[in-house]
Amino acid sequence: MTVVKSDIEIARHAAKKPVVEIGAKIGIPPEHLAPYGYDKAKLSAEFIRSKRGDRNGKLILVTAVSPTPAGEGKTTTTVGLGDGLNRVGKKAIVCIREASLGPCFGTKGGAAGGGYAQVIPMEDINLHFTGDFHAITAAHNLLAAMIDNHVYWGNELNLDTRRITWRRVMDMNDRALRDIATSLGGVANGFPRESGFDITVASEVMAILCLATDLADLEQRLGEIIIGYRFNKTPVYARDLQADKAMAVLLKDAMQPNLVQTLENNPAFVHGGPFANIAHGCNSVVATTTALKLADYVVTEAGFGADLGAEKFFDIKCRKAGLKPAAAVIVATVRAMKMHGGIAREDLGRENISAVKAGCANLGRHMENVRQFGVPVVVAINHFTADTQGEIDALKAFVAAHGAEAVLCRHWAEGSAGIEELAHKVVALAESGSGQFSPLYEDELPLFDKIETIVKRIYRGAEADADSSVRDQLRQWEDAGYGNLPVCMAKTQYSFSTNPHLRGAPVNHVVHVREVRLAAGAGFVVAICGEIMTMPGLPKSPSAERIHLNEDGLIEGLF
Amino acid sequence: MTVVKSDIEIARHAAKKPVVEIGAKIGIPPEHLAPYGYDKAKLSAEFIRSKRGDRNGKLILVTAVSPTPAGEGKTTTTVGLGDGLNRVGKKAIVCIREASLGPCFGTKGGAAGGGYAQVIPMEDINLHFTGDFHAITAAHNLLAAMIDNHVYWGNELNLDTRRITWRRVMDMNDRALRDIATSLGGVANGFPRESGFDITVASEVMAILCLATDLADLEQRLGEIIIGYRFNKTPVYARDLQADKAMAVLLKDAMQPNLVQTLENNPAFVHGGPFANIAHGCNSVVATTTALKLADYVVTEAGFGADLGAEKFFDIKCRKAGLKPAAAVIVATVRAMKMHGGIAREDLGRENISAVKAGCANLGRHMENVRQFGVPVVVAINHFTADTQGEIDALKAFVAAHGAEAVLCRHWAEGSAGIEELAHKVVALAESGSGQFSPLYEDELPLFDKIETIVKRIYRGAEADADSSVRDQLRQWEDAGYGNLPVCMAKTQYSFSTNPHLRGAPVNHVVHVREVRLAAGAGFVVAICGEIMTMPGLPKSPSAERIHLNEDGLIEGLF
Repeated sequence: MTVVKSDIEIARHAAKKPVVEIGAKIGIPPEHLAPYGYDKAKLSAEFIRSKRGDRNGKLILVTAVSPTPAGEGKTTTTVGLGDGLNRVGKKAIVCIREASLGPCFGTKGGAAGGGYAQVIPMEDINLHFTGDFHAITAAHNLLAAMIDNHVYWGNELNLDTRRITWRRVMDMNDRALRDIATSLGGVANGFPRESGFDITVASEVMAILCLATDLADLEQRLGEIIIGYRFNKTPVYARDLQADKAMAVLLKDAMQPNLVQTLENNPAFVHGGPFANIAHGCNSVVATTTALKLADYVVTEAGFGADLGAEKFFDIKCRKAGLKPAAAVIVATVRAMKMHGGIAREDLGRENISAVKAGCANLGRHMENVRQFGVPVVVAINHFTADTQGEIDALKAFVAAHGAEAVLCRHWAEGSAGIEELAHKVVALAESGSGQFSPLYEDELPLFDKIETIVKRIYRGAEADADSSVRDQLRQWEDAGYGNLPVCMAKTQYSFSTNPHLRGAPVNHVVHVREVRLAAGAGFVVAICGEIMTMPGLPKSPSAERIHLNEDGLIEGLF
Repeated sequence: MTVVKSDIEIARHAAKKPVVEIGAKIGIPPEHLAPYGYDKAKLSAEFIRSKRGDRNGKLILVTAVSPTPAGEGKTTTTVGLGDGLNRVGKKAIVCIREASLGPCFGTKGGAAGGGYAQVIPMEDINLHFTGDFHAITAAHNLLAAMIDNHVYWGNELNLDTRRITWRRVMDMNDRALRDIATSLGGVANGFPRESGFDITVASEVMAILCLATDLADLEQRLGEIIIGYRFNKTPVYARDLQADKAMAVLLKDAMQPNLVQTLENNPAFVHGGPFANIAHGCNSVVATTTALKLADYVVTEAGFGADLGAEKFFDIKCRKAGLKPAAAVIVATVRAMKMHGGIAREDLGRENISAVKAGCANLGRHMENVRQFGVPVVVAINHFTADTQGEIDALKAFVAAHGAEAVLCRHWAEGSAGIEELAHKVVALAESGSGQFSPLYEDELPLFDKIETIVKRIYRGAEADADSSVRDQLRQWEDAGYGNLPVCMAKTQYSFSTNPHLRGAPVNHVVHVREVRLAAGAGFVVAICGEIMTMPGLPKSPSAERIHLNEDGLIEGLF
């Protein structure tokens, strides 16, 4: 059962079907699918509207233990479970995020799954795809250009140029753009000031697109973006610059979910991809809510581990979109458990049952956390060839002792055949009706109390800590009417604490909130705990040096 | 015959056909058209290759008098003539440039023709279209990121960071980005240096894409881009950074011509759009050469007036691609003639025959110039409702006295029915075999002599003038093997001289070459005469403030 083919080789040899046939499987007429080539299509707004009254299928969240360098395979499991559910006779749609182009030229592998659990065409999905991210980049930067243009022509709004918070974005790993001085070179180029670029996925426009329910809601939210402050400290909105409507024009097509297929020709919506630290890290609400109208089961994922990804999925996306997840799958691997149990990466090849047992503390806490939201869990052990039976048994025993089941999954090597058991368990769990979803905190809770609730109940820290300036800022936003927003925690994904090296299940740590930001258009308050990088750099030998077209014009070196 | 509908209203009410039907008209099988929606498609590389041995149709260039604020309607006439040729029984394809998104949010109108001579879908063509410009932006900026990344990780190539000539690009009018300081903020962000952004159409990658014959040629040319110089003054190429192949991957789809249709359902290739000053200002070679294999007639246009656009079309595009234009149409308007005759814009409404006669000097010189290339000319008078019969007659008489014909064209108001006469004249001229195209100068002429040849024979200046540093630079490039390249003049489009206010047909002016740049990948030397803006700004009240989606989700305010 040795799989030697690379992801791209497997993807290239897939028996791909025309995307209209994939759409037909879930009742989408061809006239409501705008094709992008023969294997990608955008779903029409009209069709989406026509389905509003229909009943919903069941929503399954795939989340994971705290990530380790060993890799957990969350997207791979999401895609595999979608195929598995179809295999056991359920109509299922996979909903995942789009990939950011820039990081593909650094070190990142593909974001379309792996092995025999992938969405295709994976080269397109990882590069330009249907142009959504380019549209977001353009909309974001149009607003930026209009801000400096407003100042240039007299600054009627009385913007304090030192307090312009709206930066520019680019879908590229380019550290040289993190901090820049703009409008140099003389009078014709405007008033010099400091600014910078973030990567496109960190744009508030991305978060807005992923939370908006339709084009009208999108436009409304774009108008509510705060781009900076006047000399009197009052906020200036995108609407004040009359930028919101033109931005919506640029995002018109990007708002429509993209339909593609898995290697097994099952439908997948790949749409939106906000950062999982300063944003909520989930695919679009439009894609998820539409998929729920078309299928018995919708399998989706959230970024990072369950402490960050699942918490935001529940407290931001589900809260805002009125979603009720029926069950959650927590992906764990024997390797990750060993790392959480204190084993170094280079020693992962050796059996170590006691390390697995020790590392399970991390998994156990994520299980408890997800259950706090009233969502029943099942654990997927994403199988790696070096895993030993003793290690697998230890992991299963731990989960069983904590009142759930862990299922060994071989979808990476075998596709849906390797994940049938998990599919059956998920169906049983979802149909048991044991799910009673509710968010972790009420809308009415003060902002700092929301942060503290997450710190104590999810991260199991002793307390949330912040300077008085941060607390004052939160109170000001409460006074301005933003107190009912959920909070979006920006914290290292590698630990429950703010120390990325503290694996396992640390307790009693203090979580320091360094800075808070208001994403008024997206509708959340970002709490930044530790250093968060919003513009990556390239490594010394970036993969761009190896990415090329082969003699047949096919892309090589991307993964 | 009063036309009250706006361009966008006309376009919206067009009886659009599926793009596969348009392709079928010119023998493109549906499997070789990758659809982007139902009204746009990209032609496969395989199909293009399969046509290589076929015989060519006739190539017609549409060019114009020196542009004035009155507007000439070159694209409108190009599209109208394409429809006109189809109307008179010829199989004709229109080949025009793609529009830049950024300027649409400033003041620019659409770039898809006007009235009843348009290509559609015009909203798409003017905004994201099939993503080609976004791909060019990404490829350009990947190279930029790799340059700073190389310096960051030790600068093995010994790049002099003061002499990095490769800037970044964005498809946006954003004057704040013209001159910036990058890599501020400390060690982690690299070595601070001065740089800036140009608009995407000014990227050498755009020029390369438009001159490359296929993907292999594209990759070769990308490798030859000079990104800057070492401390020892030797050039550093994109190839030295191993960026060329990944850039080609990003441009794979962008290299394929886009098929759309005119309002009359005739085929149009809309592909590429380099700046007409620092680059050659023509649609892609791939689109033009492919169209010639599929049609009796291919109608294409060049940027600005004939002194800049046609000269570059002949001396750069036709020279490099081996094209032999059969005839040229020079677009003139009564209004433009009056402005060249000294009349102010606000006085254009009054009949002024003597001003028309005086302004015809501009037209006459363009006619002579085009004939110098061995290309026969016909003049298209693009009709405006306020034109009087006396003015039209004066224009016609001038052209007749100079051995050619001027034909009144009403395609803007009437579509192909209004341009039948021009279509017949063009056919007669092209089939007369009187065209004996050759470029203005030989490849072997020294670079400065090439500049001087253009200045004297096309601009009718007394001489070309340059500081010794510029002349030395040109000699260095000759020594380095670049002496055989054509020159690309960057000069104001409003006058034969370098003074934009000098309308008509000035003589004996001196053309000062301020700066020269080597576009080694594109394959030309740019001679910059006067101030050339490569990053536009937005006006005080940009059209972005008015662009919006109406209640039906349709775009308003774009034009």
